[in-house]
Amino acid sequence: MKLGDVGEFGLIERIARRVGDARPPVSVGIGDDASVLVPPAGVDLVTTTDTLIQGVHFLVGGTPFEDLGYKSLSVNLSDLAAMGARPLQAFLSLGLPPDCQLEEVDRFIDGFLEASPPGLQLSGGDTVMSPGGWVVSVTLIGQCPAGRVLLRSAARPGDLVFVTGTLGDSAAGLSIIMGKSAPEDDSDRRYLVKAHNRPMAQLEAGRILSDSGVCRCAIDVSDGFLQDLGHLCSSSRVRAEVDLDSLPVSAAAENLARMIGLDPFLWPLTGGEDYQLIFTLPADGPARSLIFSMEKAGTRTSRVGRIVSGEGVVLFEQGRPRPVPPRTGHNHFRA
Amino acid sequence: MKLGDVGEFGLIERIARRVGDARPPVSVGIGDDASVLVPPAGVDLVTTTDTLIQGVHFLVGGTPFEDLGYKSLSVNLSDLAAMGARPLQAFLSLGLPPDCQLEEVDRFIDGFLEASPPGLQLSGGDTVMSPGGWVVSVTLIGQCPAGRVLLRSAARPGDLVFVTGTLGDSAAGLSIIMGKSAPEDDSDRRYLVKAHNRPMAQLEAGRILSDSGVCRCAIDVSDGFLQDLGHLCSSSRVRAEVDLDSLPVSAAAENLARMIGLDPFLWPLTGGEDYQLIFTLPADGPARSLIFSMEKAGTRTSRVGRIVSGEGVVLFEQGRPRPVPPRTGHNHFRA
Repeated sequence: MKLGDVGEFGLIERIARRVGDARPPVSVGIGDDASVLVPPAGVDLVTTTDTLIQGVHFLVGGTPFEDLGYKSLSVNLSDLAAMGARPLQAFLSLGLPPDCQLEEVDRFIDGFLEASPPGLQLSGGDTVMSPGGWVVSVTLIGQCPAGRVLLRSAARPGDLVFVTGTLGDSAAGLSIIMGKSAPEDDSDRRYLVKAHNRPMAQLEAGRILSDSGVCRCAIDVSDGFLQDLGHLCSSSRVRAEVDLDSLPVSAAAENLARMIGLDPFLWPLTGGEDYQLIFTLPADGPARSLIFSMEKAGTRTSRVGRIVSGEGVVLFEQGRPRPVPPRTGHNHFRA
Repeated sequence: MKLGDVGEFGLIERIARRVGDARPPVSVGIGDDASVLVPPAGVDLVTTTDTLIQGVHFLVGGTPFEDLGYKSLSVNLSDLAAMGARPLQAFLSLGLPPDCQLEEVDRFIDGFLEASPPGLQLSGGDTVMSPGGWVVSVTLIGQCPAGRVLLRSAARPGDLVFVTGTLGDSAAGLSIIMGKSAPEDDSDRRYLVKAHNRPMAQLEAGRILSDSGVCRCAIDVSDGFLQDLGHLCSSSRVRAEVDLDSLPVSAAAENLARMIGLDPFLWPLTGGEDYQLIFTLPADGPARSLIFSMEKAGTRTSRVGRIVSGEGVVLFEQGRPRPVPPRTGHNHFRA
């Protein structure tokens, strides 16, 4: 069925039915000029927005619509995770091409709702015609206990640098999707492609870090580890020293890189879209017990370096300085 | 200068400099993974989002970039006005074509900031490459005293129906821009084109209505008066009877319609993009003094009909029923 058969308002009605009625703290959801949130007492409200564009962030045909819906929400959830916030409200703006099928939108919404954590309510949005192809814009509002948000600007010399999960899997997955590499092992292929198409936001890790009161500083890895750590350093006016030997890399990604003759550190350092958290902790604080809590909650956590005075990111391999790759991550508009 | 010369982060930095530091109740603005709002006590938070797409909502070349920036914010402010909310935070996602000039973005931001009312802070967003042309997605958060939001669903039989300003000016302006009509009077031309390119959100009217505690129901005219009043009726499960003779139409729009042989009610009823407010008031309440307050604040206000039991919108001309036009307003995806 074509979108034209139900029209804009039929489509909104269709999505609203799947979402159901608004629940507290949301008092007005989809269907009015705007949504209404009754903010819980004693919280800070954290808002983030990200836009994904066909041909830039994804290829229609290359990405199943369910995965596109899943990822559109995940990449935004990751920004909330990086602030230590719990998701409350989502707003979804969809620009859809004229030949779009209703079934494609249904599948997109399937994935979007599958990625929705408990507590998050799709509360509004917009659906418009888009001659240039799919445009997906998501805005999320989350909450965090007052004064407990994690900031890019809060790293201090003497802090240790940690990262969750593994780095480079998403870039390895993209190289498979683009036909540039092919793992011998089928479970490796599935694992890496999933890392790219269905990244998991580190919400639980962000929550534990914010609740701890010890961690004040985090950023998520969206553009590339080196580039995002660079943002953290410039916001905090510090330097980060990274030990390459401690960088968490999956066997699947490392094997694939070696197979195609690529420096196995390139994807982890510059690939981006990992949606893991980089965070810092004071070296003299209860870092060890906090890391233990995160591991217990199922989040692999690696200590990868330290914060010192200065600026920028420097790399060490087996204790010796190593040059930083010329391109540290993704930057729109740059040639 | 090309966008590529400054890159994504140079562009964000450039916008952030113009916006300046975050002020309470915003504690973290542009530059982190997300923004942080410390919600004032005793308020409801109202959130809306709207996307404008090149070739659908505007033509590059046809609309000066300043006007595009102005309108992108205005149409979203209008949704807050329709809820009775005061703007707090704006989030701006820009999809920009590869050949976009930095000066074009600067001019867009000029218009966007010009349309910003006091109290509104640009607090974040996203800038991405968009091969299909400009995509502008704006999300706004506003506040309203707790329990005082204006809803589409709150109209009751016996209410009177009012509308602010005049209707049809924006559609008349679009017809001029598209070269389909040309007023003899140059000040008429400027007035109508401005109504289309730089619509003014009725924030003050929305605030007065919400503060009154008497008005509970409003919607803004974005798709077309008939269609938007129809949304209000279906949300409230009521019928609206509209007296065409009371419909506020500017002399400029009426003269232009007559000049090109168009029914002078067509633009006001179905043209859309007026960004005026339709609202209802109990007939037995202090409607007269509230309307007086609005007129004193500079908002022309017209009583255009009444709410009765039933459904849909019906029209009267000089007391006699008149058929509703087949197309009541804009609907994306409908052929």
